[in-house]
Amino acid sequence: MLINCVVYRQGLKVADIDVAAISDHLVLPDTFVWVALRDASDDELSALQHEFGLHELAVEDARHGHQRPKIEEYGDMVFTVMHLVEYGPTDEPRIGEVAIFVGPNYVISVRNRSTQGFLGVRERCEREPYLLKQGAGFVFYALMDAVVDRYFPFVDALETELEAIEEQIFEPGSARPNIQQLYGLKRRLTLLRHAVVPLMDAAGKLYGGRVPQVCSHSGEYFRDVYDHLQRINGTLDSLRDTIGTAIQVNLSMVTIEESETTKRLAAWAGIFAVATAFVGIWGMNFEHMPELKWTYGYPVALAVIAGVCSLMYWRFRKSGWL
Amino acid sequence: MLINCVVYRQGLKVADIDVAAISDHLVLPDTFVWVALRDASDDELSALQHEFGLHELAVEDARHGHQRPKIEEYGDMVFTVMHLVEYGPTDEPRIGEVAIFVGPNYVISVRNRSTQGFLGVRERCEREPYLLKQGAGFVFYALMDAVVDRYFPFVDALETELEAIEEQIFEPGSARPNIQQLYGLKRRLTLLRHAVVPLMDAAGKLYGGRVPQVCSHSGEYFRDVYDHLQRINGTLDSLRDTIGTAIQVNLSMVTIEESETTKRLAAWAGIFAVATAFVGIWGMNFEHMPELKWTYGYPVALAVIAGVCSLMYWRFRKSGWL
Amino acid sequence: MLINCVVYRQGLKVADIDVAAISDHLVLPDTFVWVALRDASDDELSALQHEFGLHELAVEDARHGHQRPKIEEYGDMVFTVMHLVEYGPTDEPRIGEVAIFVGPNYVISVRNRSTQGFLGVRERCEREPYLLKQGAGFVFYALMDAVVDRYFPFVDALETELEAIEEQIFEPGSARPNIQQLYGLKRRLTLLRHAVVPLMDAAGKLYGGRVPQVCSHSGEYFRDVYDHLQRINGTLDSLRDTIGTAIQVNLSMVTIEESETTKRLAAWAGIFAVATAFVGIWGMNFEHMPELKWTYGYPVALAVIAGVCSLMYWRFRKSGWL
Amino acid sequence: MLINCVVYRQGLKVADIDVAAISDHLVLPDTFVWVALRDASDDELSALQHEFGLHELAVEDARHGHQRPKIEEYGDMVFTVMHLVEYGPTDEPRIGEVAIFVGPNYVISVRNRSTQGFLGVRERCEREPYLLKQGAGFVFYALMDAVVDRYFPFVDALETELEAIEEQIFEPGSARPNIQQLYGLKRRLTLLRHAVVPLMDAAGKLYGGRVPQVCSHSGEYFRDVYDHLQRINGTLDSLRDTIGTAIQVNLSMVTIEESETTKRLAAWAGIFAVATAFVGIWGMNFEHMPELKWTYGYPVALAVIAGVCSLMYWRFRKSGWL
Amino acid sequence: MLINCVVYRQGLKVADIDVAAISDHLVLPDTFVWVALRDASDDELSALQHEFGLHELAVEDARHGHQRPKIEEYGDMVFTVMHLVEYGPTDEPRIGEVAIFVGPNYVISVRNRSTQGFLGVRERCEREPYLLKQGAGFVFYALMDAVVDRYFPFVDALETELEAIEEQIFEPGSARPNIQQLYGLKRRLTLLRHAVVPLMDAAGKLYGGRVPQVCSHSGEYFRDVYDHLQRINGTLDSLRDTIGTAIQVNLSMVTIEESETTKRLAAWAGIFAVATAFVGIWGMNFEHMPELKWTYGYPVALAVIAGVCSLMYWRFRKSGWL
Repeated sequence: MLINCVVYRQGLKVADIDVAAISDHLVLPDTFVWVALRDASDDELSALQHEFGLHELAVEDARHGHQRPKIEEYGDMVFTVMHLVEYGPTDEPRIGEVAIFVGPNYVISVRNRSTQGFLGVRERCEREPYLLKQGAGFVFYALMDAVVDRYFPFVDALETELEAIEEQIFEPGSARPNIQQLYGLKRRLTLLRHAVVPLMDAAGKLYGGRVPQVCSHSGEYFRDVYDHLQRINGTLDSLRDTIGTAIQVNLSMVTIEESETTKRLAAWAGIFAVATAFVGIWGMNFEHMPELKWTYGYPVALAVIAGVCSLMYWRFRKSGWL
Repeated sequence: MLINCVVYRQGLKVADIDVAAISDHLVLPDTFVWVALRDASDDELSALQHEFGLHELAVEDARHGHQRPKIEEYGDMVFTVMHLVEYGPTDEPRIGEVAIFVGPNYVISVRNRSTQGFLGVRERCEREPYLLKQGAGFVFYALMDAVVDRYFPFVDALETELEAIEEQIFEPGSARPNIQQLYGLKRRLTLLRHAVVPLMDAAGKLYGGRVPQVCSHSGEYFRDVYDHLQRINGTLDSLRDTIGTAIQVNLSMVTIEESETTKRLAAWAGIFAVATAFVGIWGMNFEHMPELKWTYGYPVALAVIAGVCSLMYWRFRKSGWL
Repeated sequence: MLINCVVYRQGLKVADIDVAAISDHLVLPDTFVWVALRDASDDELSALQHEFGLHELAVEDARHGHQRPKIEEYGDMVFTVMHLVEYGPTDEPRIGEVAIFVGPNYVISVRNRSTQGFLGVRERCEREPYLLKQGAGFVFYALMDAVVDRYFPFVDALETELEAIEEQIFEPGSARPNIQQLYGLKRRLTLLRHAVVPLMDAAGKLYGGRVPQVCSHSGEYFRDVYDHLQRINGTLDSLRDTIGTAIQVNLSMVTIEESETTKRLAAWAGIFAVATAFVGIWGMNFEHMPELKWTYGYPVALAVIAGVCSLMYWRFRKSGWL
Repeated sequence: MLINCVVYRQGLKVADIDVAAISDHLVLPDTFVWVALRDASDDELSALQHEFGLHELAVEDARHGHQRPKIEEYGDMVFTVMHLVEYGPTDEPRIGEVAIFVGPNYVISVRNRSTQGFLGVRERCEREPYLLKQGAGFVFYALMDAVVDRYFPFVDALETELEAIEEQIFEPGSARPNIQQLYGLKRRLTLLRHAVVPLMDAAGKLYGGRVPQVCSHSGEYFRDVYDHLQRINGTLDSLRDTIGTAIQVNLSMVTIEESETTKRLAAWAGIFAVATAFVGIWGMNFEHMPELKWTYGYPVALAVIAGVCSLMYWRFRKSGWL
Repeated sequence: MLINCVVYRQGLKVADIDVAAISDHLVLPDTFVWVALRDASDDELSALQHEFGLHELAVEDARHGHQRPKIEEYGDMVFTVMHLVEYGPTDEPRIGEVAIFVGPNYVISVRNRSTQGFLGVRERCEREPYLLKQGAGFVFYALMDAVVDRYFPFVDALETELEAIEEQIFEPGSARPNIQQLYGLKRRLTLLRHAVVPLMDAAGKLYGGRVPQVCSHSGEYFRDVYDHLQRINGTLDSLRDTIGTAIQVNLSMVTIEESETTKRLAAWAGIFAVATAFVGIWGMNFEHMPELKWTYGYPVALAVIAGVCSLMYWRFRKSGWL
């Protein structure tokens, strides 16, 4: 579905045009076309391929989707795939995709399986004609920056969630929900890493030494994007490390709790075993057991048992078993 | 066993020829020969070595098989070994091998221990003469692409299986089958990694700066294959990571379950130990135990025991031990 | 908030000047301006951006804060972000930030969320005019050196704390506090690593082959800073490794202790079970149990029970179960 | 001990000569000398050092032994140390060493602490004069190839052993032998890795860009050796990974088994505790316990106890505890 | 404290001189001065700094000590810090330090916190004037070689200790001392790694492509040192790996032992519980229990109990629980 197709000259919007009219404008100097599509049909992609002379392999990648994030050069065209992360209806993050074709005088963005558009990017660009004047490369940067900026809330959410788990990791009895949440966190983290890491590796080639022609005037902007990606990546790395440690620590805590339960069980079992042994003694049927005949034999026996049990209780307490 | 041996000129099939006639066609311009063998005998390989002047070491690798995936240059010939993965009769993945010799005007593929052929590749190539015109390099790409594409279903199968395990990882009592399945998954993953990782490392040298002469016109196609391999590799890496975490989490879950069992055991043992101690008291043979003479002594005693046990049950319930 | 804004010529302080007067001094030879701000307002930053012609992206980074440590070149200006670590009111380390702009004839430091200033650095520089003569690059080094030097006490504190934990890691019963402290240590370590590692990576580019113009005369000084960062990083790495091992060892110790508790429990339970079985025997109601009639039956029975229990106790002792 | 010392010209054996006569032959064109020693004495090494002008440090390495595998250039001489792995009398792998000096017209191999010689290599070389014609570099390749080929059976043995362990890793009760075997496997693996990894790193420099002069004509052969080393290394890496996982899985299996034992124990203990509590009730000495007077009181009581225990048994069975 | 200060010409000792006289000799051709200090005072260092024109930062590093091992170039001077490892009075390894300044015609070694000197190195050098003729670079090598050679006994000690632990790792009951020793071993290993790894990284730059001028004639000697460091590093790496596995295996062994204890406990507890249940039955007070009246009721009862218990014992034995 075509969202819009606009011609810009010297950083200023000229007109909304039809796809078929694109080739008329591409020949003009200081002009570029910015086309935005969503869940593009085969026909639309074929039309664009024909208008802009796009490479077959790039178009196929945009058509099939489910690519890993990447930045590839085809002659003077740069083809980029980025992942879009957004919350699905079940509050579980979901991966969409945007494919971007950037040529000397055109930018085409094809969004798939995502509800969030880039209209805001276009509006902000149009408000800053002195920057938009840089051409297609700047639009490319603006789109990339927008995609990357949308990763931050997800990273923050992961951090907040991990902190919530960390607060209760040493609480007795919370081992099972902790481990489940940590595992879920790890999965969401992996999702985000798949979006960020390959893109970061690729973005490092958009500034510095040899860069694609179309990006050569916006080096400092692409470095800024790369820097953001590095920041996200650093946070994800340390989240990953912390989740790993938290799982390990959680296992330790369960074992420690278990050990304490075992100790306590040992202590109580011991106290009752002693009481049972004592009452057993006085339950024996020997004829000559003088204490059985005493008037206060019974209360004395109870007192003895209570005393011994109390003594054991006191000792176990002191040695920390109870 | 020779499957077929065909001459192509300008991207179009000329004729099926005999192996002995190959050298006659190799001298013609814009012509190349595409030979396909399966479980080739020593004689067949020697004949080809003689016809095409193949390097002894490469032929030996094709003869012995059981190589790691690799891409090697011998002068202007490129020698490639790739693993073929397919399900054996017991539903266990099995590794076959294909060795490919690519020269300026010939492609030889030698398939070993595998039931799946490359006839489909040949047919698709013959339907696209404008691509096949690129020569032996394009055939090389087409074969490589076909091999790599066949890895995807195996990766998907691993992912599906892991998801199935993940769904029951927090189910009580499923620890033993989980750990067995995770271990089996890890083995199959290793098999696939052995096929993918060395090939990916090698394929990275088929596009970009200095590439073998025969691949120089198809750089973007080889980059596409490399990209697929990277995608598979990324998925395998994260599968490996997730399996590791899952094994760790599984151990935690077992320990947690065990801990709960121990707690419950402690609680019930405690309740019965108290009951046993009480009945023991009234089983003692002291002469002066007034309650034994009471008319309702027995039911009162039973009531006391039941009461104490109920109290304990209630307290254990409250503290989550039962 | 502006802290101070001073002009230096030939390494000597000329005058405290107003921000608006900066551009008048920048044109003079052998002169540079050193401006220090704290929690700068948007207006102050905009004024400086205008005076010095700073790049928009760098100013934005200084404005927003919460950057990762980095060193970036914008033309002949070097922009640096470093983390400042200091203890917050709750004795928990807290991260502040300083952004530094270094140009051919100016240095601007913008400190955020930190209570510790750099007045000491300025004073020491002014006491060494023969070094300060090197210009803005040396001031940059002096600031960086001061920031890095402030990391050392935190690293030392981590080391001391880890040693304290290590001393009690083999003490029975300290598993829970150990694991909690190790986890806390790991978190503080991560905080410090985030400050050090990216800065180290960046600082490695300030000496040797191609370095920013402004740093070219102070290569050996920047190598010294890099060396300090490497030292800190080495220590952090080995702390991280040791914490990991300590967590693992702690888990082992808990399991070992638990195992010993279980053994001891088994032993005592066994002894009492035997006593209970014996008293049960003589509590049976058979008519023909001759020993029940013996005059010394009871004490003999007690002696037998005590003897058997002692024997068991002695054997358990010998085999290390008690 | 000198094994043999032979002069070759144009790939053909000329004569067995004396060490003292070597220098006479070294001056002839297309000629090289191949000397083989075993557990060489200091005098023999000094004589060779004098004849060939070998570098002091290389000779010292060959004399002392216990080097790590390496390939070093001393001027136009290449010095190599490789590990020889063989089974000692106790079926435990044992490490020997071979040091090889390769110059433009000589090859010297000094074997230490190893029973397996290289006579086979010499014989095969002499049977292929068209290859041996390549000179000392080819002999170097042939020796290296022989050493590397001898690693394969050890790798295969490790794989076979691991598979045997894997088959019984999920068998109950095999945890202790498994863990002992896995640990032993890991040790033997480490031994082999020490032989392979440094050699592989070094062998990578014998083909491709800048190689030692003496190896320059046999590049494809050295790449073949490198490829074998890579294959071994890949297998060793994945063995290492699998052993790690197997140890982890083994621990899980022990914990699972233990957990099942605990459950079963809980169940049986519960059943007997109930029985004991019941018999205790009817062992109480209350005067008014009507059921004690019933004619069938005793069998009814036994029936009640048996019934309750059966009920518990049935419930535990159903819930999987027995 | 100055140890000695000697002038060498053409590899031969000329004279012991005073520090103040150094500058007189430095101007002579083919001459170099070798100064050795121990725990140098500030004055001594300042004097040397003045005599040789040493860089302030290097002198400060030598003064403060507690540096990480490193090799730095200051103009044509090479500054090196190496760690000296020696046993302290408590048999615990202790870290000392030696700082070495090497210029075109001088070598200064400053030893700190170490009791072992380098007199032996000086003596050996003086015995080999044909090597010492190479100048300051060779002295540098000789010192470095001496330092590195002193690491070997410590590595060997670690290996011996680990082997001792490995021998008893599968012995029952040795888990606690094992884990303590492994942890201690890991700490000593870390100490040694800190001495070796940074030095190895730095030493790799003393031979091959671009090396400091002063080392350029002794490349093969420095490669030899590098090779030793690599060997130590390789051994340390595999020690580290083995310690990690040993800790893991130790945990498994404890869990296995615990599991066996639990099983045995279950078995004995079961046997006694059955005995107690039986004696309880015949302790019940039913009037109509015919077996109580039998003449041989009591011995038969005892026989029945003994029989049942024996049967259980036999079955538990058979199933491996006892």
